[in-house]
Amino acid sequence: MNQQDPKQTLQALRKQIDQLDSELVDLLRRRSLVTSQVGQVKSQTGMPIYVPEREAELIQLRKQQATEQGVSPGLTEDLLRRIMRESYATQDGEFLQTNPSIEKIVIIGGNGALGRIFVELFERSHYAVTSVEKEDWHNADDCFADADLVLVCVPITVTCQIIEQIPQLPANCILADITSIKSQPLEAMMANHCGPVVGLHPMFGPDSMGMVKQVVVVCNGRLSEQYQWLIEQMRVWGAKIQESSAQEHDNSMAFIQVMRHFNTFVYGAHLAHESPNLQLLTDFSSPIYRLELAMVGRLFAQDPELYADIIFNDLKNVELLKRFQQRFSEAIVLFENGDKAGFIKQFFQIGNWFGDYSKKCLLDSKKLLLKADDDKMLR
Amino acid sequence: MNQQDPKQTLQALRKQIDQLDSELVDLLRRRSLVTSQVGQVKSQTGMPIYVPEREAELIQLRKQQATEQGVSPGLTEDLLRRIMRESYATQDGEFLQTNPSIEKIVIIGGNGALGRIFVELFERSHYAVTSVEKEDWHNADDCFADADLVLVCVPITVTCQIIEQIPQLPANCILADITSIKSQPLEAMMANHCGPVVGLHPMFGPDSMGMVKQVVVVCNGRLSEQYQWLIEQMRVWGAKIQESSAQEHDNSMAFIQVMRHFNTFVYGAHLAHESPNLQLLTDFSSPIYRLELAMVGRLFAQDPELYADIIFNDLKNVELLKRFQQRFSEAIVLFENGDKAGFIKQFFQIGNWFGDYSKKCLLDSKKLLLKADDDKMLR
Repeated sequence: MNQQDPKQTLQALRKQIDQLDSELVDLLRRRSLVTSQVGQVKSQTGMPIYVPEREAELIQLRKQQATEQGVSPGLTEDLLRRIMRESYATQDGEFLQTNPSIEKIVIIGGNGALGRIFVELFERSHYAVTSVEKEDWHNADDCFADADLVLVCVPITVTCQIIEQIPQLPANCILADITSIKSQPLEAMMANHCGPVVGLHPMFGPDSMGMVKQVVVVCNGRLSEQYQWLIEQMRVWGAKIQESSAQEHDNSMAFIQVMRHFNTFVYGAHLAHESPNLQLLTDFSSPIYRLELAMVGRLFAQDPELYADIIFNDLKNVELLKRFQQRFSEAIVLFENGDKAGFIKQFFQIGNWFGDYSKKCLLDSKKLLLKADDDKMLR
Repeated sequence: MNQQDPKQTLQALRKQIDQLDSELVDLLRRRSLVTSQVGQVKSQTGMPIYVPEREAELIQLRKQQATEQGVSPGLTEDLLRRIMRESYATQDGEFLQTNPSIEKIVIIGGNGALGRIFVELFERSHYAVTSVEKEDWHNADDCFADADLVLVCVPITVTCQIIEQIPQLPANCILADITSIKSQPLEAMMANHCGPVVGLHPMFGPDSMGMVKQVVVVCNGRLSEQYQWLIEQMRVWGAKIQESSAQEHDNSMAFIQVMRHFNTFVYGAHLAHESPNLQLLTDFSSPIYRLELAMVGRLFAQDPELYADIIFNDLKNVELLKRFQQRFSEAIVLFENGDKAGFIKQFFQIGNWFGDYSKKCLLDSKKLLLKADDDKMLR
């Protein structure tokens, strides 16, 4: 350190940092030129966008270099993953078409948030796609004539109703839906069409960038060999395909969607009634508590109809909720009796049930909170 | 695109990417050399590590450049924030000492997870620090003689008990604690020491990287002018200071810590009893549901004693939980009656109570989920 005024020294160092950061932006520009060429090659040959082995190798090489040069390997990995996410999102070229004999795809609700994503993916794969909306229904017979695939992308409440209104489809036409419950829509499709039928549940919201790395649940209906090209097409788009029966799928969803949303709703109702000072709550919270609170708050910025539809969809789930309430009472008794030992015993039992998953959750959520901290998120 | 074999083309492009990524690592190395010089200048002059305006300016400049050069400004911002987080964590040089007349700091529990962080921060600020653990207690009189500051960093269950056992301290010695509840420890400190007293609640866990950007709640006890140097010292470490009364602090904590942990405990108990297939639950979940589940699972990888201590700490909170349960029953009635309209009406009322905060939660959690996706976290 020289004898200069520290403010001047700081000024000079900050200029150097700005220069280096400017180099970084230029490096990103040059990298994206190369990755968009990679995207072109892949789309022309149908190679998958996401190649886990290549990604792992790329990261491994750089972490090794980082360690040798005294740079944090964790930092290096985080930056590369973020850069790669961007490059998946911007490899918006074309995709290989897995079945060039398909001449007409009809997407019911293709202007909706999820429908749009499918329209775009099909178009980028050189299929002819028609969207059908409510206002086109008067012309339904024309819309569906000669369709090779009809994909239902409408809100959960109207899915079955819409399926029943679809006019008779060509015998070889594939009928598919993307609703987040599967038993009822699949039944409705089977009853309404005698050709190939498949229920899909793509596990991503409208914010997701395409289908890369996302899970799509496939519930087979009928004549599965005829829609294998569709499954393959989703793989080309980057999806991870997971087969399941509709019942098994819906049972799992009851725990995740119905239970969790219901509980969050009640938690929000409780807070609103008790009405603590929300600003103090967040001011006095460490990142994990802010995240807990954000997970409640976020529900109420969304469409209540959607959540009403999900929760009220199946009256069978009332029993599940009543058992939850019963367990709540039991836990209150532990508290009232000051029975810490009973609490701790149950805690361990639950921990055993979760197994290694709970450790993974803890590690992942810690990593995630560090990321949230970078951005002063959740504040 | 040339006429080459696409595999060869891809190979060549990947080499170019590796070359560019290697440049990135080198850039990080050069940048960290400069930021460590910045750290030195700051520590010698007591300038704060975290300067929000400089950070905002730095990011703004690069986002502008990115936009001009066709690079994603969002990507640029994310990368810079991640790089800066690392540079805060590694600016592990010295700190300005705000009160050079302090000769002896005693930290009770200085070998614990949070205690260690304080020991390190004080030492990097040139204070003489002594840790006192259980096994040193037989020698307590010597340990505390001539102390200028005694900081209690022990688990919540034993805080008050330990405070009562501290031998008489010098009249000008500051007595402080860092427990996550404040009323009882503050009372105990006031009763046990007639000199300066202050309750602190640093809002971060042991995983956090130092105190940069973290909130520390300050509950004034007595003779606050005598511990202003300590508050200033925490500011030098990067903390954001938030004053509060102990009661106000604890009321807020009941909602965040007691309510939320209790609810999560019951949710975990319910899952463990119902015992759905956990693998299917995560396989069938979109990122937001995986995060919901992870927030439950993570509890059970932690110390049950800690959570028992937090929840069972104040029997008053039983009433809060009972009212929660009452609201749960009321919501079940809505469900049983198929009263979607009632659900939606309440949903809006709760949304109104949350106000803009819920929108912020939604945006932040979406951003966070994209980050989780980069790393295949929560899977």
